[in-house]
Amino acid sequence: MENPASKLSRRTFVSTGAVAILSAHLGMAEAQPQGDPLPSWNAGSAKDAILAFVRDTTDKSSSNYVEPADRIATFDQDGTLWTEHPIYGQAAFALARVGDMAPSHPEWKTTQPFQTVLSRDYAAMAKFTEADWLQIVAVTHAGMSTQAFEGLVNDWLAKTKAPRFNRPYTDLVFQPMLEVMQHLRANGFKTYIVSGGGQEFIRVYSQRVYGVPPEQVVGSSIVTNYVNTNGKPELMREPKPFFIDDGPGKPVGINLFIGKRPQAAFGNSGSADLKSGDAQMLEWTQAGPGAKLMMLVLHDDAKREYAYGPAKGLPDTSVGTFSDALLAEATKNSWTVISMKNDWKRIFPFDQ
Amino acid sequence: MENPASKLSRRTFVSTGAVAILSAHLGMAEAQPQGDPLPSWNAGSAKDAILAFVRDTTDKSSSNYVEPADRIATFDQDGTLWTEHPIYGQAAFALARVGDMAPSHPEWKTTQPFQTVLSRDYAAMAKFTEADWLQIVAVTHAGMSTQAFEGLVNDWLAKTKAPRFNRPYTDLVFQPMLEVMQHLRANGFKTYIVSGGGQEFIRVYSQRVYGVPPEQVVGSSIVTNYVNTNGKPELMREPKPFFIDDGPGKPVGINLFIGKRPQAAFGNSGSADLKSGDAQMLEWTQAGPGAKLMMLVLHDDAKREYAYGPAKGLPDTSVGTFSDALLAEATKNSWTVISMKNDWKRIFPFDQ
Repeated sequence: MENPASKLSRRTFVSTGAVAILSAHLGMAEAQPQGDPLPSWNAGSAKDAILAFVRDTTDKSSSNYVEPADRIATFDQDGTLWTEHPIYGQAAFALARVGDMAPSHPEWKTTQPFQTVLSRDYAAMAKFTEADWLQIVAVTHAGMSTQAFEGLVNDWLAKTKAPRFNRPYTDLVFQPMLEVMQHLRANGFKTYIVSGGGQEFIRVYSQRVYGVPPEQVVGSSIVTNYVNTNGKPELMREPKPFFIDDGPGKPVGINLFIGKRPQAAFGNSGSADLKSGDAQMLEWTQAGPGAKLMMLVLHDDAKREYAYGPAKGLPDTSVGTFSDALLAEATKNSWTVISMKNDWKRIFPFDQ
Repeated sequence: MENPASKLSRRTFVSTGAVAILSAHLGMAEAQPQGDPLPSWNAGSAKDAILAFVRDTTDKSSSNYVEPADRIATFDQDGTLWTEHPIYGQAAFALARVGDMAPSHPEWKTTQPFQTVLSRDYAAMAKFTEADWLQIVAVTHAGMSTQAFEGLVNDWLAKTKAPRFNRPYTDLVFQPMLEVMQHLRANGFKTYIVSGGGQEFIRVYSQRVYGVPPEQVVGSSIVTNYVNTNGKPELMREPKPFFIDDGPGKPVGINLFIGKRPQAAFGNSGSADLKSGDAQMLEWTQAGPGAKLMMLVLHDDAKREYAYGPAKGLPDTSVGTFSDALLAEATKNSWTVISMKNDWKRIFPFDQ
């Protein structure tokens, strides 16, 4: 069963947040690895697939050699690079913004969907419709300049801790995936984030958290308008969707923003109808010539992070759905499914 | 007076084409300059402004020092990097496509606007409305995959020679601007094309002609849809505008695709109402902190290329308009106006 709230939040701008363990992450992203480039991965077919792909595409004597200019790897964010449970970080940002703005909006006490948010009725929030979420996004993400929005995201990241781990959202990044990004970059690949979440939200922290510069973040976006008042030009964010980078929108976004086809793509989700999530990004990647690497992160580790599917009998939580249909696609197309429980020695940078 | 045909062609996908002087341009784009990095520029304030800007932003002891990751320079294409007269190259491509497709469309012999195109009635074509051009773009640029479109552009570039110079369109690039791009790149700047022309059109030749990779080309685009038929995924081009990267759309496009504000911006056009062309890109660039470089190419050299304004009493040709209003903005904001006649020693790479 699809939760409309999470469906909308997946589709529109809603992913996750961040104050950084600056030095740790930066060091992680930029240092050249010595010896094993993937120390947080257990030995196994997933790790082998990554190492073999990089060797094969960068060895000039290989028939699968790829010119450095064409080395492109794309990564979904929520659930692939960082934790997306219990709700997407960007959804948490939106809800927090409603709280912060409430004093100036006394009418929200008796107006839906704001009344529900302010009453912290999470069961009712889980039933929000797309229209409810669009209203929330409109007041929390639009009606301000791009610069003002960046400031709001930064402030929220600095003061907010994610549930369960009680750490800033940007601490909850997956150490094994940081190592993959770093290994790819060390071998001449350009690493891109290709997320259903908000492009301008992710860009605020992508460099410091993932070592991915803003120009390599592709995501969902709303309309912006250029306004020059008294010689002070600004880009104003409007409450109107512009591009939805989800499902079939991911190859569209990759072509629009990059103009090259990736050799490697990493995701974790796919709805039962496969219209939301990462399936098309992996298909599009695989359909190109030469050696390819398609991987899906399966959250099967309730002890160290979260466990959800419903594939493989895992709980169906509706956030970051890994459907049976996605698993069937993975099997049919020989995509590698990464088991967090079995393939990852360490989940977070702060794990010992 | 605004020519509606050229106005539309400026606004939607219509710029210019290319087979390359491969070796010459690649050498140009990639080699590190020895001594004077701008040998095709005459001594003067324009050349000085470029050299001073690069020194100021890359000298660590300067208060205007810019970190390498933030060094962004944006270039309009038509009229700034290559010749746009007598018509934009992409308009020439569209008209040629109508001719190529005509045998399969006998109805065009009696249907406008195709009848006019097929009769080569250039005077009538100059009076085409936006609706006429949209029809032409719809049949010539859409209804095919992105891959098929790339093939068509490549084929056209290979077989087509531009008027007057009787050379491939991509020969008609401005040697002094290639030197500026190269000098900026040699000093850590990322060079972007930010054009009202079609993004996917320009990407076909941007690397080989300008040394600018596809992911650094921002332009106008039409909607694409992901279609997976029998396991063969394609992106289909639809006859529907998606993003118009012109006038106020240029800062919007820069923010959308790059997510950083440029330190340097180069253009050449601005309609009388300034709503089309490069004015907003230069304003947006200038409004950021630190040292900035804003430059406009004035085509005042009928002998070696073309002369048009109507600024400074030059002919008003309606393609690539440099209006009096744009000149007034340049004066007010201290933007540098480059005189092709006086500032450029050489126009094209093939000039001796």
